[in-house]
Amino acid sequence: MDSKQQLLNKSNEAKEIFLPHISADPVVFGFEQNELKVLLLKMNYRKQWLLPGGYIKKDEDLEDGVARILKDRAGVTDVYLEEFGVFGRKNRSEFYFEDFDDTLFHKQRFISIGYFALYNPSKINLIVDEFSENCDWIYLSRLSEIELAMDHREIIEKALLALREKISIKPIGYNLLPEKFTLSELQKLYEAILGKELNRGNFYRKIKNLGILNKLEEQRRGGAHKSPDLYSFDEENYAKALENGLNNW
Amino acid sequence: MDSKQQLLNKSNEAKEIFLPHISADPVVFGFEQNELKVLLLKMNYRKQWLLPGGYIKKDEDLEDGVARILKDRAGVTDVYLEEFGVFGRKNRSEFYFEDFDDTLFHKQRFISIGYFALYNPSKINLIVDEFSENCDWIYLSRLSEIELAMDHREIIEKALLALREKISIKPIGYNLLPEKFTLSELQKLYEAILGKELNRGNFYRKIKNLGILNKLEEQRRGGAHKSPDLYSFDEENYAKALENGLNNW
Repeated sequence: MDSKQQLLNKSNEAKEIFLPHISADPVVFGFEQNELKVLLLKMNYRKQWLLPGGYIKKDEDLEDGVARILKDRAGVTDVYLEEFGVFGRKNRSEFYFEDFDDTLFHKQRFISIGYFALYNPSKINLIVDEFSENCDWIYLSRLSEIELAMDHREIIEKALLALREKISIKPIGYNLLPEKFTLSELQKLYEAILGKELNRGNFYRKIKNLGILNKLEEQRRGGAHKSPDLYSFDEENYAKALENGLNNW
Repeated sequence: MDSKQQLLNKSNEAKEIFLPHISADPVVFGFEQNELKVLLLKMNYRKQWLLPGGYIKKDEDLEDGVARILKDRAGVTDVYLEEFGVFGRKNRSEFYFEDFDDTLFHKQRFISIGYFALYNPSKINLIVDEFSENCDWIYLSRLSEIELAMDHREIIEKALLALREKISIKPIGYNLLPEKFTLSELQKLYEAILGKELNRGNFYRKIKNLGILNKLEEQRRGGAHKSPDLYSFDEENYAKALENGLNNW
């Protein structure tokens, strides 16, 4: 089916089911090959990349709606999503649906609520929904090479800033690194999020001071260099730090 | 005029002007007498206390709308508001307008966007709008004694958590303390926000390490104790720290 006709067909049903003017855009970050990537869809209509966003049902709690959208559009479940910003410029999407007249549900003004999550890509089996020709992880370093719809580039950038703030107040890495990891691997994750290199000595000292790591009796074997110590997260202390924050004061 | 009739009279006009289903609730904190307080209205209708919230115009950017609401409802201008959370449970306000039938604009489901600000109460001249019988600062320690409408107690609690997180990543105090202040006064502000006492030696060491303070050549005179040193914020470094964050890594 033609991608324009597909949207037209869905418009009346959407008016019945969904709240007008409110949408949600989840920014799911993954970490692989020492780099961050982000989960995006390539829509049939216009062939641009978009966040896997959608609308909230009239009889549905907001947070249930966001989880449903991510499941339906990308097959992603069991992700803890955190709200980080609201995108409410009145003309943020005015050109995207310019091929349609104003009766199209999707063309009205939407204030979009942004959520972010950090997840291990290898644990997710992606699906492609009926409106998309692709659903994939795109490395942040490659974002400048693709066409992103509406203000979705700005939403991703703001999500990254929110992730950087979070790393100052919460532990990060559980469910993202393998069960056993080296301090160097953990440092690579922090560097990818912060977008800069960290001094190794400072990082090791600070991360150990958080009290969330257990040093194991094993080393990583097989590299050309000295075998580095392996660590795992101390689940109890990690959970406590998540709840109370890293408490700089 | 009867407060019910007043809402009924406004309902049709509201449908013309405002987006449905979206509201904004600003949580403005003040600091006085070493305690935090929050700006609230007492509505004519039901005589409960509420945040000075409202609706977004169809042709208005979201952030302009929030600023307009705070100006119209409380007389507050020039406040930097930060979005901290969205309140979207489907039944969050279902009982509040139960005296009305479903055609009332105010009775529909609203997803509300929460903003917080920290401001010096002595710099604000409050007004009382046509829907309210009072607009006032209420100390957080007194919130348990008053009736708060809908989920506004939860919104205030979440705003306070957001403020606590912010204090870990951004400097706080400018525009809130007098131009010259003692470290003890700054510590009292941090303690009020964090809701706990801080070790004086640790606090002094950490706050000085941020590099945002200038030690003045004057002392605070007149107390019974040893005259403490006075400080002011270093505006350039403060602005830099605001922009870059306190950078724990």
